[in-house]
Amino acid sequence: MTLLVAIENWIPELWLDRFRRLAPDLEVIDARAPFDPAAARFAAVWKPKPGLLAGLPKLEAIFNLGAGVDALLADPTLPHVPVVRIVDPDLTARMTEWVVMNVLARHRRMDDHRAAQGRAEWRSIHQPAAGSVTVGLMGLGVLGKDAAAVLGRLGFDLVGWSRSRQVVAGVETFAGAAELPAFLARTDVLVVLLPATPETRGMLNRDLFRGLRGAEHLGGPVLINAGRGSLQVEADIVAALDAGELAHAVLDVFEVEPLPKTSPLWAHPKVTITPHCAADSDADALGRRVIGGIRALMAGEAIDPAEVVDRRRGY
Amino acid sequence: MTLLVAIENWIPELWLDRFRRLAPDLEVIDARAPFDPAAARFAAVWKPKPGLLAGLPKLEAIFNLGAGVDALLADPTLPHVPVVRIVDPDLTARMTEWVVMNVLARHRRMDDHRAAQGRAEWRSIHQPAAGSVTVGLMGLGVLGKDAAAVLGRLGFDLVGWSRSRQVVAGVETFAGAAELPAFLARTDVLVVLLPATPETRGMLNRDLFRGLRGAEHLGGPVLINAGRGSLQVEADIVAALDAGELAHAVLDVFEVEPLPKTSPLWAHPKVTITPHCAADSDADALGRRVIGGIRALMAGEAIDPAEVVDRRRGY
Repeated sequence: MTLLVAIENWIPELWLDRFRRLAPDLEVIDARAPFDPAAARFAAVWKPKPGLLAGLPKLEAIFNLGAGVDALLADPTLPHVPVVRIVDPDLTARMTEWVVMNVLARHRRMDDHRAAQGRAEWRSIHQPAAGSVTVGLMGLGVLGKDAAAVLGRLGFDLVGWSRSRQVVAGVETFAGAAELPAFLARTDVLVVLLPATPETRGMLNRDLFRGLRGAEHLGGPVLINAGRGSLQVEADIVAALDAGELAHAVLDVFEVEPLPKTSPLWAHPKVTITPHCAADSDADALGRRVIGGIRALMAGEAIDPAEVVDRRRGY
Repeated sequence: MTLLVAIENWIPELWLDRFRRLAPDLEVIDARAPFDPAAARFAAVWKPKPGLLAGLPKLEAIFNLGAGVDALLADPTLPHVPVVRIVDPDLTARMTEWVVMNVLARHRRMDDHRAAQGRAEWRSIHQPAAGSVTVGLMGLGVLGKDAAAVLGRLGFDLVGWSRSRQVVAGVETFAGAAELPAFLARTDVLVVLLPATPETRGMLNRDLFRGLRGAEHLGGPVLINAGRGSLQVEADIVAALDAGELAHAVLDVFEVEPLPKTSPLWAHPKVTITPHCAADSDADALGRRVIGGIRALMAGEAIDPAEVVDRRRGY
């Protein structure tokens, strides 16, 4: 029984070692070296080279080692076997940690406090209550709803936007392109948790930023993107920050990852960067779920339909 | 009807303006200028000069413009009129914001991410789940319980310590001096929300720090103090940080406030300072409550007993 590991833009060795350690009975092969295409029955992949998976006649299932499947589905030669999106059960909790931390750090003006500390200055900074800040959540799936629950508990005013209408307790919701302007006009801190689809590409652009409200103590509107890099137009983010249309951007995802050294975002004083780690999976837990899925298929059992990608929907 | 405003170590002008704006019918007088002592029927104070209030024959009530009354009660000449501790209803929410933000910033290693950004370096940093971190709360009153509720929702493991035993959902509790070592031995991040009393003075010292556990990804134990400055021995904090017995200290309160320019805490790379603002009151809301209390007394009504200080208990 053979598992092909095909990973680009990541560290394949860690995954090869992990699978060999977690399932010593599996033959684990590295897609970077020559291998027998007829041997591969399962593939564990992250952004594999387009075409690679098409040449595997015995392939039964593809396990994607991350939440995002947009890169995989963009390959027109992708074989018609189930694509399993492995989701680590604590991914949602990690995303909520990251979102809540960044909303609070903006709201509580930690940059200003840090600067005052650097000057050894005991400086009072005006601090409104959370209820005076409206956080606007774009994307009201599992991640958006969980972040909303904690932000609401902390007292923030909440609005939410999604493609199709959602009902979320404590959140005033807006839906579709027609209601986007009304959503933005209510939003001080925009938290983006949308998936990458053709419709969301480039959505976070200067026109959108100009529609945001922004709170006085934040210095204007704040953008927090932990969705996907393809959502954002980075040149527009820089222009909007420099024009004062955005007060700050907290970015975990980028148009190109790793973010190139030459990007003006790195050194921009109004930008906070984390390296696509807002909701890192626990790699061992994730590896165990892949192995569990392979064993289920080998035993003739089905994969949880919630984990199988709907190719038409795109996620 | 005259309100005397006596404020030290703060900005009296803001309060004079606020009271005049909120209650144009009151005569508001400034304790820093000469005034007729027999005119003052009410006083709004923050750390007034000892003896100042003793010389006011018509004084009916003292409104303390903050939660802490220890400085006020330390004045042996304080007249025997009701001392009203004005508590802003959103003070608890503000404290929880500050505590949650700082626990998350440590847990999510935002200093390391900021340093990597400064080097334009796309650096993966190992990130355990919240459940692997035990937050130890010292003080399980209204503030401690509210912080525990949100930290528990975020997935942190929780222990709590207080002088007398408390039962708090989702928190393993310890009580009294005898159980302090067991509490510390479980604690990775120590969050201190104790009041200033003779028993808590100097409690946060090197012996206590040496009893803490500390988590690997935090670099050791973390101290977060938003209680009172008198709890902590700052020389011991610096020594423990330098010896690696503490990984980081987040301090909102200090032995002497404002923190003197000469303090080694300001420039210490393992110290985060905020200027006693973790739970700032909304000054207008607080001013309205003072005015409301004055009007109640003028109408012959009583002040809510929960807001009147018990001088024997000390809070």
